[in-house]
Amino acid sequence: MITELGLPDRTPLSGLPSRVRIHEVGARDGLQNESSTVPLETKHEFIGRLARAGLRTIEATSFVHPKWVPQLADAEQLMPLIAGLPEEYPGLRLPVLVPNTRGLDRALELRCADIAVFASATESFARRNLNRGLDEQMEMFAPVVARAVEAGIRVRGYLSMCFGDPWEGPVPVGQVASVGAELLKLGCTELSLGDTIGTGTPGQVAALLRAFEQRGVGADRLAVHFHDTYGQALANTLAALQLGVTTVDSSAGGLGGCPYAKSATGNLATEDLVWMLDGLGIETGVDLPALAATSAWMADRLGRPSPSRAVRALTTPS
Amino acid sequence: MITELGLPDRTPLSGLPSRVRIHEVGARDGLQNESSTVPLETKHEFIGRLARAGLRTIEATSFVHPKWVPQLADAEQLMPLIAGLPEEYPGLRLPVLVPNTRGLDRALELRCADIAVFASATESFARRNLNRGLDEQMEMFAPVVARAVEAGIRVRGYLSMCFGDPWEGPVPVGQVASVGAELLKLGCTELSLGDTIGTGTPGQVAALLRAFEQRGVGADRLAVHFHDTYGQALANTLAALQLGVTTVDSSAGGLGGCPYAKSATGNLATEDLVWMLDGLGIETGVDLPALAATSAWMADRLGRPSPSRAVRALTTPS
Repeated sequence: MITELGLPDRTPLSGLPSRVRIHEVGARDGLQNESSTVPLETKHEFIGRLARAGLRTIEATSFVHPKWVPQLADAEQLMPLIAGLPEEYPGLRLPVLVPNTRGLDRALELRCADIAVFASATESFARRNLNRGLDEQMEMFAPVVARAVEAGIRVRGYLSMCFGDPWEGPVPVGQVASVGAELLKLGCTELSLGDTIGTGTPGQVAALLRAFEQRGVGADRLAVHFHDTYGQALANTLAALQLGVTTVDSSAGGLGGCPYAKSATGNLATEDLVWMLDGLGIETGVDLPALAATSAWMADRLGRPSPSRAVRALTTPS
Repeated sequence: MITELGLPDRTPLSGLPSRVRIHEVGARDGLQNESSTVPLETKHEFIGRLARAGLRTIEATSFVHPKWVPQLADAEQLMPLIAGLPEEYPGLRLPVLVPNTRGLDRALELRCADIAVFASATESFARRNLNRGLDEQMEMFAPVVARAVEAGIRVRGYLSMCFGDPWEGPVPVGQVASVGAELLKLGCTELSLGDTIGTGTPGQVAALLRAFEQRGVGADRLAVHFHDTYGQALANTLAALQLGVTTVDSSAGGLGGCPYAKSATGNLATEDLVWMLDGLGIETGVDLPALAATSAWMADRLGRPSPSRAVRALTTPS
């Protein structure tokens, strides 16, 4: 069906890239926000299937303390199970989230080649999530990033609450760009701009990207990370692509946002994203039917349908 | 919450309009695709609430034979109930779908000021839906449109299967533009381009709009009608807006696509659309909280949650 309905007339919109790198966050950001905890063996199989489906950046897990994220308490057991995958799939990266120096120690022991740190664009969320202010979070991350870089590890910086903040409301783009530029200066290779509460719209995306540009940070060092809480994630992604962004975060099957939860705060579903990119003739390397089958399989394990519209359309027998 | 999270930095993307007219299809296209039939009194209240929420084009019902659309069999009873609304809400239009000359007779008797006819861009769907070929459907609509125009009635043309067709696969843009231009020539004031199976992506939208332009049909005479089957509706809408379209079809609460149905084939939800347009600073006249409350009320009546992400986010107590 996908092949049959391939695009007849690929007239690109202006400024779109020819290739997009998908940073798949389902196994980490997705599973840590699911109410049920997935067994280690299921995670192992999930990541293997994501790699087989063509994804080449798969955020695997988090070294945040199990007290805060019990869903990923098996990070130490998971990493050795998937350590062989990059040999099987050349170019595969398996970043892990690292909250602090203790987390970095664990990542070094496990010979992780990619890590990510998670900062906030707002004072309120920095205080609530990290128990630190905006400046103090930088002081905390500085030695983590420095040591990682010294060890030859690539570091991604996440910046949350880049569009709206539940306590502060709208977040000024200048503030976001300042905090983000600082995080990059610590030594991060890329910065992922998160719309944590999903309120952003395409004009804000454009404004934020321009604010970064004015601070000398080009779209080539930026990734976008949209949540579909208000249904805006894919439209925001389209705007970001038009403005030069080529790295997009998404979650297989929209993991992390249960369609029956009180409020669906899920990540952009990778399948919805790939459907659009395939249609636009933008390469991702992803085999969409294989990915949708993987997400349908994971939804079965979670005991509920996938919130991804593309997954439901592609995997429901007609 | 909406006010708090209003946009701090409204940097528009290029080419966006300052105002969009929403053609609300929930009461017709939405309800005719719901499995349960809504009582007459509920429809009456629904349309009244949509008008109160600021919508000014509300497609009310259909004069298609009740054998085909039993959900709207009460069209004759409904129209007199809502006939007074345009006095209360100046500028309010309440179009009805009219399939043929018999349907037009009913519309004339009920003094409808706006009707719509429903054509197909593909031979296969024209045969299946209308039991006629592409040329024969025009022969059928020609006298309907001509008589309506003579009676001072505005006629909208719907064109379905503009992007993909379940039997034919991708539909060449040239074919869609030809059929659409013909429908406009009959005397339609506007043409709504429907992605009936929801497979379209933004590049196809751009290509189709350009094909119309090449045939002398500007975006000012076109509306877009996207389905969210693969999650593409809002991204496609953004592309259409960037290319000059200022009339967008959508369905309050995403009516017509049940989140639990085997495949969710629903219309773009008006609330998801308005969230984006509000964020972009594009006027619609719609009071989003009032509209979301209306859709939550209707979802209660239908006995299931709204498939609109914005409705769920806006109406779920935190």
